[in-house]
Amino acid sequence: MSTPLLNGVLAPVITPFKPDLSPDVERYVRHCRWLLANGCSGLAIFGTNSEANSLSMDERKTLLDALLEAGVPAAKLMPGTGCCSLTDSVALTRFAVERGCGGALMLPPFFYKGVSDEGLYRNFAEIAQRVGDARLKIYLYHIPPMTAVPFSLGLVERLLRDFAGTVVGMKDSGGDWKNMEAMLKAFPGFQFFPGSEEFLLPAMRLGAVGTITATANIAPAPIDELFRKWNTPQADAMQAAITDFRRAITRFPQIPALKHTTALYTGHDQWAVTRPPLVRLDEAQGEALAAELRQRQFSMPGIND
Amino acid sequence: MSTPLLNGVLAPVITPFKPDLSPDVERYVRHCRWLLANGCSGLAIFGTNSEANSLSMDERKTLLDALLEAGVPAAKLMPGTGCCSLTDSVALTRFAVERGCGGALMLPPFFYKGVSDEGLYRNFAEIAQRVGDARLKIYLYHIPPMTAVPFSLGLVERLLRDFAGTVVGMKDSGGDWKNMEAMLKAFPGFQFFPGSEEFLLPAMRLGAVGTITATANIAPAPIDELFRKWNTPQADAMQAAITDFRRAITRFPQIPALKHTTALYTGHDQWAVTRPPLVRLDEAQGEALAAELRQRQFSMPGIND
Repeated sequence: MSTPLLNGVLAPVITPFKPDLSPDVERYVRHCRWLLANGCSGLAIFGTNSEANSLSMDERKTLLDALLEAGVPAAKLMPGTGCCSLTDSVALTRFAVERGCGGALMLPPFFYKGVSDEGLYRNFAEIAQRVGDARLKIYLYHIPPMTAVPFSLGLVERLLRDFAGTVVGMKDSGGDWKNMEAMLKAFPGFQFFPGSEEFLLPAMRLGAVGTITATANIAPAPIDELFRKWNTPQADAMQAAITDFRRAITRFPQIPALKHTTALYTGHDQWAVTRPPLVRLDEAQGEALAAELRQRQFSMPGIND
Repeated sequence: MSTPLLNGVLAPVITPFKPDLSPDVERYVRHCRWLLANGCSGLAIFGTNSEANSLSMDERKTLLDALLEAGVPAAKLMPGTGCCSLTDSVALTRFAVERGCGGALMLPPFFYKGVSDEGLYRNFAEIAQRVGDARLKIYLYHIPPMTAVPFSLGLVERLLRDFAGTVVGMKDSGGDWKNMEAMLKAFPGFQFFPGSEEFLLPAMRLGAVGTITATANIAPAPIDELFRKWNTPQADAMQAAITDFRRAITRFPQIPALKHTTALYTGHDQWAVTRPPLVRLDEAQGEALAAELRQRQFSMPGIND
């Protein structure tokens, strides 16, 4: 109740790796600081774009603690803490809450398919009860293209009713506007973030509180500007511009493209590296992406290696 | 090279939980012993039916060590060690190899969808190189209904070529006979296990080495009998009988049905409990399943709580 809820533009922070594929902690902290100084009001660390599920629990805990030690305010962090394993989800969510994180962005357990709403409800009920901390703010992470385990309206309604004040919002990365619209209309006051800035303006018009979006890793400022000016005459033109930019990036495999762009503009090629099963852009893709960026006079102001 | 490879009927061992949903280690060990005494030649612990992805790494390590302490031979164990996270997969696979396990049954990293064969290849290459132990025997776990990340023929060919003697086999739980047939024909000498006894006889006729199948948790003996007598005149009738039994069980949600059956025949109701996101059978389902079992004069000889 004391800390205001997160809103605005949150980046699902990409994770730099060293040549041995271990997380490059110092470079990660620098990227997080750059994001917060350039338009992000918060950091959705350990998301899909972070390759978080390709990291161990300990690697995630180390990165979170490194940010806090570097002075990044915990209230600005919304780490991904939803795992396949109930015990992992409880442990990681508790870890985040104890450190004062502003929220926890929770995937459903995503190994089993065709699971019932009852089973998903029990997963979140167990987590909320076991963590048992009034500071816990759960944001449901709806991303059927990866999980194939959707949050239905009925499930969300039941969680909001039974865990009022704990289950507070959603990131919707399904790419389906009809679902976003239904969620926004069904649950006034729900802290709703479309998972792409393509939907920022229509979602804001229905009560969304911002966006958690991949592209914020490289171009947070224009998305933040639309967030702040969504209710002005320029909003539609701003939406068109950021949508155009996003589509230029997502012509390429998304996570490798974000990392490749960061490598180009920091001058640190190692940024382009992903953990398996993802692979970095090949040379031709990298050149095509660089051409798109140059053509748009893209820059990452103040970025440095 | 010294230890013979696993073959025959392997059970993907179901995991009993206490009322607080922690694994019931003693009961687990008893079930494993019963399986080995009643037709299983090996135990594919930490599979889909084990709810392994609903367990933490530490919970899995504790269960594996409990089996070894109880005198279960490591050579009979084929634990699931494939995780979404490269570092988790390396750690769990190394743990299994150091303890002398007969094999490691490895899921592909299953969070990201639409990943390339190159990315999957690199995942397994990194694991094989990092574990770096000649004793490592990797069985690829093909289960697209859960992972949505298949192993293509091209990927298997490349892994078999570059990691000969390390990548040795596959469990195919895709349910698609055409894929099984293609794998069996493409790779003579491949240690191939259909993931359901429904395909045991046709697969044996093409060179399979056994089956790793859910139903082996409750009825290992008749499956083992077909494995031993597949090349006899009775084989087709035996196949028909075990297929009929499997279909009676899998009319119900599979994992809850196996646990419910075990609860019925041990008299220990707690066996029926699953971790979220799975839910136990409801009363009507439980009664319908019990009727199916009675009608077939089903028993679990020597089972005790």
